[in-house]
Parts: sequence; structure tokens; C-alpha cells
Amino acid sequence: MALMAQREFNVDKNASFSEWYNTVIYAADLVDVRYNVQGFVVHKPWSTRVLRKLYSLFEAELEKDGHEPVSFPVVIPKENIDKEAGHLEGFAPELFWVTKGGNNELARPLALRPTSETAFYQMYSLWVQGIGDLPLKYYQSCSVYRYEHETLPFLRGREFMFIETHTAFAERAEAAAQVAKDMVIARRVLEGGLGLALMQFVRPHWDTFPGAENTYANDVVMPDGKVNQIASTHMLGQHFSKPFDVSFEDASGEKKYTFNTCFGPGIWRVMAALIAVHGDNKGLIFTPVVAPVQVVIVPIFKAETRDAVLAYAVKARLALEKKGYRVALDDSDKSPGFKYNEWELKGVPMRLEIGGREAEAGNVTLVRRDTHEKTVVPLAVLPRAVARAGKALAKELAKRSKAELKARITKCKSIDAIGKALDGKGGFCRVNICSTGSEGTACGKLIQERTAGKVRGMLYGADEKASGKCVACGKPANEVVYVARQY
Amino acid sequence: MALMAQREFNVDKNASFSEWYNTVIYAADLVDVRYNVQGFVVHKPWSTRVLRKLYSLFEAELEKDGHEPVSFPVVIPKENIDKEAGHLEGFAPELFWVTKGGNNELARPLALRPTSETAFYQMYSLWVQGIGDLPLKYYQSCSVYRYEHETLPFLRGREFMFIETHTAFAERAEAAAQVAKDMVIARRVLEGGLGLALMQFVRPHWDTFPGAENTYANDVVMPDGKVNQIASTHMLGQHFSKPFDVSFEDASGEKKYTFNTCFGPGIWRVMAALIAVHGDNKGLIFTPVVAPVQVVIVPIFKAETRDAVLAYAVKARLALEKKGYRVALDDSDKSPGFKYNEWELKGVPMRLEIGGREAEAGNVTLVRRDTHEKTVVPLAVLPRAVARAGKALAKELAKRSKAELKARITKCKSIDAIGKALDGKGGFCRVNICSTGSEGTACGKLIQERTAGKVRGMLYGADEKASGKCVACGKPANEVVYVARQY
Repeated sequence: MALMAQREFNVDKNASFSEWYNTVIYAADLVDVRYNVQGFVVHKPWSTRVLRKLYSLFEAELEKDGHEPVSFPVVIPKENIDKEAGHLEGFAPELFWVTKGGNNELARPLALRPTSETAFYQMYSLWVQGIGDLPLKYYQSCSVYRYEHETLPFLRGREFMFIETHTAFAERAEAAAQVAKDMVIARRVLEGGLGLALMQFVRPHWDTFPGAENTYANDVVMPDGKVNQIASTHMLGQHFSKPFDVSFEDASGEKKYTFNTCFGPGIWRVMAALIAVHGDNKGLIFTPVVAPVQVVIVPIFKAETRDAVLAYAVKARLALEKKGYRVALDDSDKSPGFKYNEWELKGVPMRLEIGGREAEAGNVTLVRRDTHEKTVVPLAVLPRAVARAGKALAKELAKRSKAELKARITKCKSIDAIGKALDGKGGFCRVNICSTGSEGTACGKLIQERTAGKVRGMLYGADEKASGKCVACGKPANEVVYVARQY
Repeated sequence: MALMAQREFNVDKNASFSEWYNTVIYAADLVDVRYNVQGFVVHKPWSTRVLRKLYSLFEAELEKDGHEPVSFPVVIPKENIDKEAGHLEGFAPELFWVTKGGNNELARPLALRPTSETAFYQMYSLWVQGIGDLPLKYYQSCSVYRYEHETLPFLRGREFMFIETHTAFAERAEAAAQVAKDMVIARRVLEGGLGLALMQFVRPHWDTFPGAENTYANDVVMPDGKVNQIASTHMLGQHFSKPFDVSFEDASGEKKYTFNTCFGPGIWRVMAALIAVHGDNKGLIFTPVVAPVQVVIVPIFKAETRDAVLAYAVKARLALEKKGYRVALDDSDKSPGFKYNEWELKGVPMRLEIGGREAEAGNVTLVRRDTHEKTVVPLAVLPRAVARAGKALAKELAKRSKAELKARITKCKSIDAIGKALDGKGGFCRVNICSTGSEGTACGKLIQERTAGKVRGMLYGADEKASGKCVACGKPANEVVYVARQY
């Protein structure tokens, strides 16, 4: 039981989300922030296991969509990064540089990858020789490195885990279709699998990924009302294929550059959302799909019932393991109440309480982590009852998240109203604006200066109709956008 | 079918192993070495998938043995590495240094981890507060970084994949037992699962891991007669627990330092062994347990039988997928013969040939990659036939590897005989030596100077009895050791 919690946990999530978050990640033994390099954290087994599940959920969906895994070097030469001007400008201040090997100065500095467009497209230039080599759809599961100044585990780190896909297509329409598929994948995994209610946006022109034509993003609202971008996908057009010469000859012998997209599910940030959105005052709540332990069995016995209860508890464990469940039987010497607290803190979605009475009657008591609802279940139907309870829990968490999101959307008709709403319950302010194109840049800036909120963009796929005037410049509004403060 | 081979492959493995190896890794589309940083390679999907399987084979065994996964930072501050003198001396010339973030010089340089003892033990010092916190058994699956001068994919890289376990125990005997278990795990995965015949050694005192008391290693002989160390485990004693203060108070209140071990399955080097040992003049041969595709189906048809054959091929695919097999149906426009070559090159262990005759009779023709043996199998029993053929193939590869190893062991009575044997068939020279303790250091050196072979150590667990004189100094021999040239 090296997994066990390290600390008392007694913080009110609603009263002080920030303190709650910073306490729970340590109390539930997810990370240790005492590693002696700022912004680089140690992931303990419990979070390592959850993060692996998050990776595999996205990987499975990406593979179904025809992406294949690759593994690229962690270092990218400066000359590669210099090739795309916007990308360089966006990332230059954030790069870590490797400059020495042994006692030698390296001939040229190598960046630790902040993301890998400039590594991938150089190779795509070699791999794309003709239209028969297209499309290319590769992904990499890896950590990336950014020289950030403020860091917070799972939200902003100098080292953090993500997935990056990089694709190349012959036609713009195919690239656009890929971006749309990425948004479907994001919704399927994040909302469907993990119960995180999303806002999907087309980011404004002035807030795209460095080097992208358009950025599409998935935002989750955190309990303090700030939003967490957890996965974004980008239409890169030919911004990278031209400087890197990712090209082919078409049937008529004309040289064509590929259209590229990249999709970045932020595994770390998904973890942050899971912790923050689903957790409560007792700790974390994981849905069964990602929980390292789905069911914990807590035996309750006196000296004289010990053997019978433990034997029965093992029977229950085997019945569940046979059906593929991840089960822990906590037979340590701690009291049942202590165990309840510890495993609740760690977010295990279901608990079985097994005492002498249960053992004799051939029952178990099944307790849900989200509602604390107790059901007495005959051992014979336990796997089915666990399946049902797990589904119900996932559904309940998704419902709560949806309700929470809905309650955090405020229609605002002025910049003052935005500021007030963001100071209050936070979340998203729905406003009318002149444009999310470059001509709206000044309006976006003004809103940000006056409210500390950023224009997150237009709702993706919703085609909302604007009316009235732009909240910022007062000219006729053409677009409906959402403003929020962000992590 | 982006997986397909890139190049003609026509090199005789026996005539020129080095050329064969350097050609096959590219022809079978495992890596691309054209990335513009020396020693950093791009792993294509085919190798990425195999490497993932190799990771998961070891991870499963480690978890069964009670190890838990963690994820540590890629950077280690210089002050940590400086703490253990032998470790520092061993690794200092090989370190990459991160010295800049953005435009700032970092206050102190950060090494890219060459291995993570000095990261882990610092945290273990915080995590071990009492004997109740022991044992600690963690592992990390990651890439590590070494500033090597000669590089070769999967054998020696500036970035390569491995697993590192780090354990802490209260008692020396427990640490020793862990080392013994590591050797069992290595044999189980490498010899049992992957069919790689091993020599397990206790390394001589002058050739231990930097910071270790004793090193135990698993060597595989490569087709050119040089050996490849693919997994080693180390008794660290208290070399790290003392400088890092990994300690606890025992029952009597006395301060005790932990005993530590670390085990490093070299995932990259296992890959090199799989390629080199099992491959033949047609390309790679993967055992079913690691093959990304276990069965490829090649349909053979004329225009008029096309639909029937393809429908039947899909039926065969589904029958196998239902049983959990990884199957590819190659319905591309290439000729069957071309497809056979391509998939053989990539090492797919079994092929199904399905033509009009097979479709009509309800049969398939099953072809093994290792022996090219063909069997006609009724579709109804296909999964069973595939299971049987896969097992037979794995057994055959293991048998070949064992025979190859056995043929490469030569008893030698003099240094000249060692040199001659190593110049000839290579492999291992079994010799008598005065000692593998520090007093034998000069003899080890002499052997190496005269033969370019290194003393790999005493056979682990064999307790072989020495006789006669030390081949180097002529004093009475006390130990039997094996000498080999190494990668």
C-alpha cells in the first residue's frame, strides 16, 4: 500500500479552490513538487497510472482514425525552429537550450522540443515524394518543454505530457476534414469517456497557435471560473510545408505543397480538469475508465470473523478481476473508516464493504464514491452491479459537469458586464463582437485589458447569429464570442 | 499501407552482418537516421509499435514483482550528479547540459538524465521516513541521453529507450534477493518470451556500473560474434543512500541507511538483438508476442474472382481478430509476390495466402516466416492453427538462438587462443583467471589490450570450478570467466 495518502485532507473546494487543488494533488499522492528544479515535478504511481490511461484513450481513438505512432528526438536544432517565422516568435522565449555535451560546446544549440512541428516537417519533406505517400498521419506521445515562469502541476509546467499529431494532405479540404475529426475525437474522449463538459471554439484570428491559420480548441471551466484549454487542433495551411518543402508533383507535373494539421491533446491538462471538475471535499473522483483501481474492497472484521471475512473478500476480488476489473483488497491494519477516507481521497469510484454479516449472507455492500449511495448486492451478481454503478457514476459526473458549465455562461452586453461576471462566477461571457478576424484584434485587446478575460472564440459548429453592436467598438456586431479568464 | 518498405533489400547477413543490419533497419522502415542531429533517430511506426510491446512485456513482469510506475523529470541538476563520486566519474563525459532558458543563462546547468539514480534517491530521501515506507520499488519507462561519439540505431545512441527500476530496502539480503529476481525477470522476458539465448554474468569488479558494488548482466551474442549487453541489474549497497541520506530509524532508534538496487532493461538493445539474432536474408522475424502484425493476409485473385476472394479474406481476418490477433489484410494493388517480400522483410511471423481455390474449399494456406513451411488449414480451425504455428515459430527461433550461442563458446587456455577465437567466430571464450576481484584488474586489462575482448564475468548462478592457471598472470586460477568483444 505504498499508494496511500500522505497527508490530512481537509479543505473546502468551494471556499478555496486554489488551496484545495494544491492540497489534493499532494494528499492523494499524485505528484511531489519538491524535486529540486522548478516546474519539473515527480509523478507518483497513482498519477502515472491515470496519465497512462489518458494517453491510451486518445491513442486508441487516433489509431481508429488512421494515425500511426512514431517517436521523434527530444532535441530540435535551432535552424529548424527558425524556419517558420510565427512559430519562432511564439516559442523562442520559452525554449530550453542544450548547449554542451560532456565538456564540449555543441556546434549549434539544440532546443528541447516545445512541440515538434519543426522536427516532423523536416522529415515529412523526405517522406513525401509523391501523392502516393499522402496522407501522412502520425502521432507522438511524449513530454514537451517550455521555460515557463509560473508553474502549477498539470496546468503549466516546464515539462508536461501531451500528444501531438502531425498530418500532411494533398488537398486543403482533406486537412479541414481532419481538423473536424480531431474535434470529434476530443469530444468523444473528453465528454463521452471522461464526463468533462466542453466548450468547443474556433479561436479568434489574433489567438491562433504560432504558425497556424486557424486554431480550434476545447475549453473546460474550472471550479474557480477560469478556463483550461485541454486540447486544440490547428489548420496549418501551407505555413510549414513551404519553408520545409513538404511537396510533391501532381499528375500534370506541377509542384504542390501539402496542407498540414496538428492536434494536441494536453494529457496533463486533461488530468487537471479531471481533478478539479470531478473532485469534492473528500478528494478526487475518477471515472472507472481511468481509475487505477476501480473497486476497493474494505473488509470489516473482529478477531473471530477475520478469516471468514478475508476469504470472502478474496472471493469478491476474484469475481471482479475475472471480468477484467482493477481491484484492490485493502487488508492493512488500519481501521475501516481510515481506509474509506484514504481511498475516497484517491478517487476510487466504487467501494465494497464486507463484514461478517455480508460474508454469511453471501452479499456485499457497494458504495459509490460520487453519491455515497449504498446498495447491498448478492455476490453472484456483483460484476453486473459494479458495471451498472460505474456507468451511473460516470453519468452523474458528466451531468454535474454539464450543469456547472451551463451555470457559468452569462450573456453580457457591455465590457463592464463582462468584468463583473468574470469577477463574480467566472466562466464564459457570451458577447457580440465586430469580428474575430484581424480587424477585431483591437477589440479583443481592449476586452482583455479591461476585464482580464480573453476572447475564446466562436462556438465551433454552432453558427450563432450576432445581433446589436460590438461590446468593444460599438460597430455592428457580426459574431458571437465567449470571453473567459484562462489558466 | 504507409508501413511499407522503402528500399530493395538484398544483403547477405552471413557475409556482411554490419551492412545487413544497417540496411534492414532502414528497408524494414524501423528508423530514419536522416534527422539532422547526430545519434538522435526518428522511430517509424513499425519500430515504435515493437518498442511499445517490449516496454509492456517488462512492465508487466515488474508490476507482478511489486514495482510501481513513476515518471521523473528529464533534467537532473549538476549538484545531484556530483554526489556519488563513482557515478559522476562514469557519467560526466557523457552528459548533455541544458544551460539556457529563453534568453537567460540558467543559474545552474541541468543534465539530461543519463540514468536517474541521482534524481530518484534525492526523492527517496524524502519518501523514506520510517521502516514502514520500505521497501520502495519504482520503475520508469523513458528515454535517456548520453553524449556518445559512435552511434548505431538500437545499439548506441545519444537518445535511447530503456526502463530503470530503483529500489530501497531495509536489509542487504532483501536487496540481494531483488537483484536475483531481476535476473529471473530478464531471463523470463528475453529467453522465454523473445527467444533470445542469454549468457547471464556477474561482472568483474573492475567493470561494474558507476556507483555499484556488483553488476549482473545479460549478454546476447550478435551474428558478427560481438556481444550486446541488453539488461543489467546492480547491487548499489549504500553507495547512494549515504550521500542522499535515504535512511530511517530502526526499532532501537539507530539511524540506518537503505540498501538499493537498480535494474535497466535496455529496450533499445533488446530491439537490436531481436533484429540481429532472429533476422535472415529476407529481413526481420518477429515472434508473435511483439509483432505489430502477427498475421498478414494476402489475397490472390483475377478480376472475376476478386469479390469472392476479398470477402473470404475478410472472413479470415475477422475470425482471427475475434481471438485477439493483430491482423493486416493487404488488399493493395501490388502483386502477391511483391507483398510476400515486403511483409517478410518487416518480420510478420505468419502469412495467409487466400486464392479462389482456398475460398471455394473453405481453406487458407498458412505460411510460417521462419521455415516458409506451408499448411492448408480449414477456416474453421484457423485461430487454433495460427496459435500453434506462432508457438512453433517462437520455439524454432529460440532453438536457433540457443544453438548459435552454444556454437560461439570456445574454451581457451591462453591469451593468444582468445585473440584467435575472437578474430574467428567471436562469441565467448571460456577461460580460467586468477580473480574477478580488484586484484584481477591488471589481468582483465591485459586480456583486453591483447585481444580487444573484455572479461564479461563469471556465469551467474553456475558456480563453475576453475582449474589450472590464470590465462593472464599464470598464477593459480580461482574463477572461470568469459571473454568477448562487445558493442
